[in-house]
Amino acid sequence: SAKQKILLLPGDGIGPEIMEQAVRIIDWLKAERGLNVELSEDVVGGASLAKHDVPIRDEVIAKAKEADAVLFGSVGDPAWKDVPFDRRPEVAILRLRKELNLYANLRPAKLFDPLLSASALKPDVVRGLDLMIVRETVGGVYFGEPRGIETLPDGTKRGVNTEVYTTAEIERVARVAFDLARLRSGRVCSVEKGNVMESGLLWREVVTDLHKREYSDVTLMHMLADNCAMQLVRDPRQFDVMVTGNLFGDLLSDLASMLTGSLGMLPSATLGTPEGTDKQAALYEPIHGSAPDIAGKGIANPLAQILSLAMMLRYSLDRGEDSELIEQAVSNVLASGLRTADIAAAGEARVSTAEMGAAVLKEL
Amino acid sequence: SAKQKILLLPGDGIGPEIMEQAVRIIDWLKAERGLNVELSEDVVGGASLAKHDVPIRDEVIAKAKEADAVLFGSVGDPAWKDVPFDRRPEVAILRLRKELNLYANLRPAKLFDPLLSASALKPDVVRGLDLMIVRETVGGVYFGEPRGIETLPDGTKRGVNTEVYTTAEIERVARVAFDLARLRSGRVCSVEKGNVMESGLLWREVVTDLHKREYSDVTLMHMLADNCAMQLVRDPRQFDVMVTGNLFGDLLSDLASMLTGSLGMLPSATLGTPEGTDKQAALYEPIHGSAPDIAGKGIANPLAQILSLAMMLRYSLDRGEDSELIEQAVSNVLASGLRTADIAAAGEARVSTAEMGAAVLKEL
Ligand SMILES: CC(C)[C@H](C(=O)O)[C@@H](O)C(=O)O
Ligand SMILES: CC(C)[C@H](C(=O)O)[C@@H](O)C(=O)O
Repeated sequence: SAKQKILLLPGDGIGPEIMEQAVRIIDWLKAERGLNVELSEDVVGGASLAKHDVPIRDEVIAKAKEADAVLFGSVGDPAWKDVPFDRRPEVAILRLRKELNLYANLRPAKLFDPLLSASALKPDVVRGLDLMIVRETVGGVYFGEPRGIETLPDGTKRGVNTEVYTTAEIERVARVAFDLARLRSGRVCSVEKGNVMESGLLWREVVTDLHKREYSDVTLMHMLADNCAMQLVRDPRQFDVMVTGNLFGDLLSDLASMLTGSLGMLPSATLGTPEGTDKQAALYEPIHGSAPDIAGKGIANPLAQILSLAMMLRYSLDRGEDSELIEQAVSNVLASGLRTADIAAAGEARVSTAEMGAAVLKEL
Repeated sequence: SAKQKILLLPGDGIGPEIMEQAVRIIDWLKAERGLNVELSEDVVGGASLAKHDVPIRDEVIAKAKEADAVLFGSVGDPAWKDVPFDRRPEVAILRLRKELNLYANLRPAKLFDPLLSASALKPDVVRGLDLMIVRETVGGVYFGEPRGIETLPDGTKRGVNTEVYTTAEIERVARVAFDLARLRSGRVCSVEKGNVMESGLLWREVVTDLHKREYSDVTLMHMLADNCAMQLVRDPRQFDVMVTGNLFGDLLSDLASMLTGSLGMLPSATLGTPEGTDKQAALYEPIHGSAPDIAGKGIANPLAQILSLAMMLRYSLDRGEDSELIEQAVSNVLASGLRTADIAAAGEARVSTAEMGAAVLKEL
């Protein structure tokens, strides 16, 4: 059968270090399990700015569209903090999401039991936590027009962004959440700020209508975003699937993943259908960022990147068994007590990025 | 000397019950401490919708402008969830903030030590937590134009809101934060999403410039809002004063107050200067909402409302001693072990709203 194409985009900061460990596993799967993929790799973010003077080249977007899946590291680099707004490293991931129409970002917040002590929350509050945030990623205030900074007659400035959501944009992401809920506990919590924002009010209306029409078997509740931020701290296990817009999703999913104490282990998938095609596109990336403070030190946790690969194998490459193999290997490594710095308790020994990668390989 | 005017606006849900306890204390201060104030009271929110068919009457806005301070309960009532957007109960607080130009909302998140066990966080993470969020409250996406829901040619809809911040709006609220920091630990963390939103980029620039020009003695750091949501869970004690826009402030301050486990005890002050005047206007309100689920049961915690009164005495009425008396009384009551349901640990006895109010009175 034809080779499947995977595009690797390690990006900035710790991205390249952790991607290296994921690639070791891909190599093993090719050698030992008959995985038939063609890898290509390119630069994005600060790395692309350095080499090509843009955060992402059009040909990288084109390659991503052609690929069966994109495995992404992360972007963001303080070295480029003074570039013009449209040239900042973050443009790479924003353009990828937008141009591949990757509208649904699935962000699990799952607590790995051996890491219970790494959470800032009391064990009784988070034990067994396993929720999934579905974040809209090609709309909202991230992309709405008009936007920009204008200079006023008196020389001072005015910064503007526009939050926009349409019925169609809300419906398609809500569908992803309802479908997921059917495979999980059958509960969805939709989050907006409809008591203040009309875009949030429309969000609630559209989700409510869709629910009535097609998903009345799923239990739907609505929550205001400020209350949701509280509830995630007070009692996060009340949630199963959550669905929300781009900006609230950004904050709430980071918050939720921090509750687990295992941010360095959480993968994510962003799914969609590029306009004018009917093929499914997907990008897999760790939930954590580029962590410039520890980049290059060889101490970053590669598990989120490795688990992102596992998600890719299952959802884009139809290789569920390989995916399980990896997840089981990660779980064995953790059970054996191996810890990178981010998940080590005070006084516990810490292994390097490469040692953690090697340990997962060995368990395969 | 002339009587000072206080406008009481209990609002919806538990608002009236907890306001009643604050009024008992005002009455005591009048009788025993020579407090010379004239109280008037009016309805807002759902209560005003029921009586006057609008969430707030213009004459209430006018009375609020004339008053030396407003003591507010809270608004929001599910009974009015299907009214048109511009008639929802929340319009009451939004119009008060806007028309009195109350642009700086001071939201302390302080952990009361006897309540350590009520927090979902580990004691070591939150012990002694005492931070202050300064939230901008008359700008941003709460008020920006254009806004609304329009119907598209195909019958589907489009919801729009606009996030706007100007140099002047950012500077004045940042000034409040820097001034506060000088009275506290001398540190400010400014929070935005300038890697995605131009309004956030301008926010960061303006805060940076003001800091350089006038506040270089204060330590300033910048943080992205998503990272901030994480950091508040990971290690909230790294923060002292934080300053942020209206929407991020809404989420982050609710999150921060939940960390303390004592949401029902946290007061807030919103300060500003009505356009065309040079008098300081102020509104004091609990951080918690109208809690419709427990309204009318007599079990709500009145301490946030009582502590909001204490803040009013200090900041608007120049009665620091009375303010301290109240704070001390609250602290004694807590130390004596009295708990309303929201702050009681499992198995602990719970007192009613009125019993808690009476206990504070008795300690005065
Ligand atoms: C890097 C940044 C643009 C991005 C976002 O805000 O979406 C990141 O925070 C994320 O959550 O993936
Ligand atoms: C009631 C609501 C409009 C309000 C807000 O969003 O500002 C509340 O959540 C608050 O934080 O004071």
